[in-house]
Amino acid sequence: MLRHNLFNLISTELEIVETKLTASINSNLDLLNETSTHLIKAGGKRLRPAFVLLAAKFYKDDLTEIIPIAVAVELIHMATLVHDDVIDNSNIRRGVKTVMSCWGNRMSIYTGNYIFARSLALVAAYGRRDIVDVLADASMKICEGEIIQMLSCYNVNLGLKNYLRRIERKTALLISLSCRLGAMISKAPEQGINALKLYGYYLGMAFQITDDILDFIAEEQVLGKPAGSDVKQGVITLPALYALKYDQHKAELSSLLSSPELCRTETDRIIDIVVNSDGIDYAYEKTRHFALKAQKQLNSLPDVPVKEALFDLADFILDRDY
Amino acid sequence: MLRHNLFNLISTELEIVETKLTASINSNLDLLNETSTHLIKAGGKRLRPAFVLLAAKFYKDDLTEIIPIAVAVELIHMATLVHDDVIDNSNIRRGVKTVMSCWGNRMSIYTGNYIFARSLALVAAYGRRDIVDVLADASMKICEGEIIQMLSCYNVNLGLKNYLRRIERKTALLISLSCRLGAMISKAPEQGINALKLYGYYLGMAFQITDDILDFIAEEQVLGKPAGSDVKQGVITLPALYALKYDQHKAELSSLLSSPELCRTETDRIIDIVVNSDGIDYAYEKTRHFALKAQKQLNSLPDVPVKEALFDLADFILDRDY
Repeated sequence: MLRHNLFNLISTELEIVETKLTASINSNLDLLNETSTHLIKAGGKRLRPAFVLLAAKFYKDDLTEIIPIAVAVELIHMATLVHDDVIDNSNIRRGVKTVMSCWGNRMSIYTGNYIFARSLALVAAYGRRDIVDVLADASMKICEGEIIQMLSCYNVNLGLKNYLRRIERKTALLISLSCRLGAMISKAPEQGINALKLYGYYLGMAFQITDDILDFIAEEQVLGKPAGSDVKQGVITLPALYALKYDQHKAELSSLLSSPELCRTETDRIIDIVVNSDGIDYAYEKTRHFALKAQKQLNSLPDVPVKEALFDLADFILDRDY
Repeated sequence: MLRHNLFNLISTELEIVETKLTASINSNLDLLNETSTHLIKAGGKRLRPAFVLLAAKFYKDDLTEIIPIAVAVELIHMATLVHDDVIDNSNIRRGVKTVMSCWGNRMSIYTGNYIFARSLALVAAYGRRDIVDVLADASMKICEGEIIQMLSCYNVNLGLKNYLRRIERKTALLISLSCRLGAMISKAPEQGINALKLYGYYLGMAFQITDDILDFIAEEQVLGKPAGSDVKQGVITLPALYALKYDQHKAELSSLLSSPELCRTETDRIIDIVVNSDGIDYAYEKTRHFALKAQKQLNSLPDVPVKEALFDLADFILDRDY
């Protein structure tokens, strides 16, 4: 349903984005082309480009001018993923081997930097200070978020506020930015830019909580990476956070989650406790809360078909139909 | 003499750059501030900011407007150094422990990305497409250069052309860019921008060859890092390249330099062969060649005091007085 709706409105543009993603990586070095397009070829939801395009669609029918920034935003996302795989020592992403696993740390760092520089070149072409500004700001905040996440690992004493801050930096920020950039480039009025920015923010929060739930309940096939990755890395997400506070096994869970070794060896037991607590339901409730907030932002926007699509997108999360 | 001349003309501005370098790192996360300012506090020649300022001085007396880009260029340089230390697993740079050595790979990757994003924010403030453009282009080429260097390690069959391409990407490009940006922002005429860009390019080539010579002949104290680092990492530089082709011990040298293990264990023997060959003299000759080419670019520029300083800077290299 989600894909259907998105496809109806921006299918042509998303196809162009797909082509331009590969075309934008254009080095004289074969090796660098290979490593940089490796992750692109693994596919992906292209959620961020989709948001850029959908936000722009409120104010513009011809999205030709929007394509490069949609590509740039996906490239920034990919650059962070390539670096993340070095940092997390991950071998699999989106069902295929990571750049790190195929070419090692060194090439992965270069590849991430190169992809980021490529996205910068696309952004530069707009010649707009405000756009480079928000991108630089987002890049800094994303780095900060990764550090907050790192510092929070295995720490069972941090609460909801720390979690929300982490997922904001990790996901909501770039989705919010995508919506904002789509609106900015299609010359939306200030109030429209702001509503779309907030829509993206709340939807991004909802998405990340959903992702965090799936890490507990989904199969490796669905995730495209091993289930329980968060637990294994000591990343304490919302369902676990709830169980740590309210579940009957909270003492056991606390001692397991605070030990890097036990997080690795007792992953199944940890997942078991969390899945059998009310943590999953609580997290779904939070997802719902953010999805509703996202929908509310749409009220003030023009009544064009894309409005319904964005509303449905939030509904889709409310439905738990994934 | 070098420092003296630079200081006469841009000493006030360089002091402001120094202050702004630390001030520009301004995260809410103490850890990120600490890691990001770690390398700044280690000092450094601030060669790139100096070139930005000197180039601007041809066309402008008040350099207030130039300071942010001078800071940005040094930050970009530092971001690459922080990542390099992860890649090369280096413990010491500029005489102090590296970010990698103090905080590990993970924090170093984040820190490099954060510093780069900070520099981007400074660049954005100019609101000039051409400037973001040349920076994006330079960032891509620097990544490519690092990969070329990586692919060239332990390969004794690559010649002068490969070496020149490597040092171009490694050093000349960013110094050339510094001169170019200084000229661009001070609204120099096209021909002035071009002459300064070429001056920076040739001087950068001369500087890197000098650096490569010093890796063979200088003490650890002078270098701020262990001597023979290039050899240990299998990076074959000009003096070695010459010895590989013409020295009586070329067969031995070739078998040593093509083995990662022998590069580490037989470093002293390798240095010995190269230092006793004519490779060092040959490299000095190349340095001289580039320094003269740099000086030649100055001819067409306005006769202001900075012209003499830039001429002397190239002379300084010709003098071997370092």
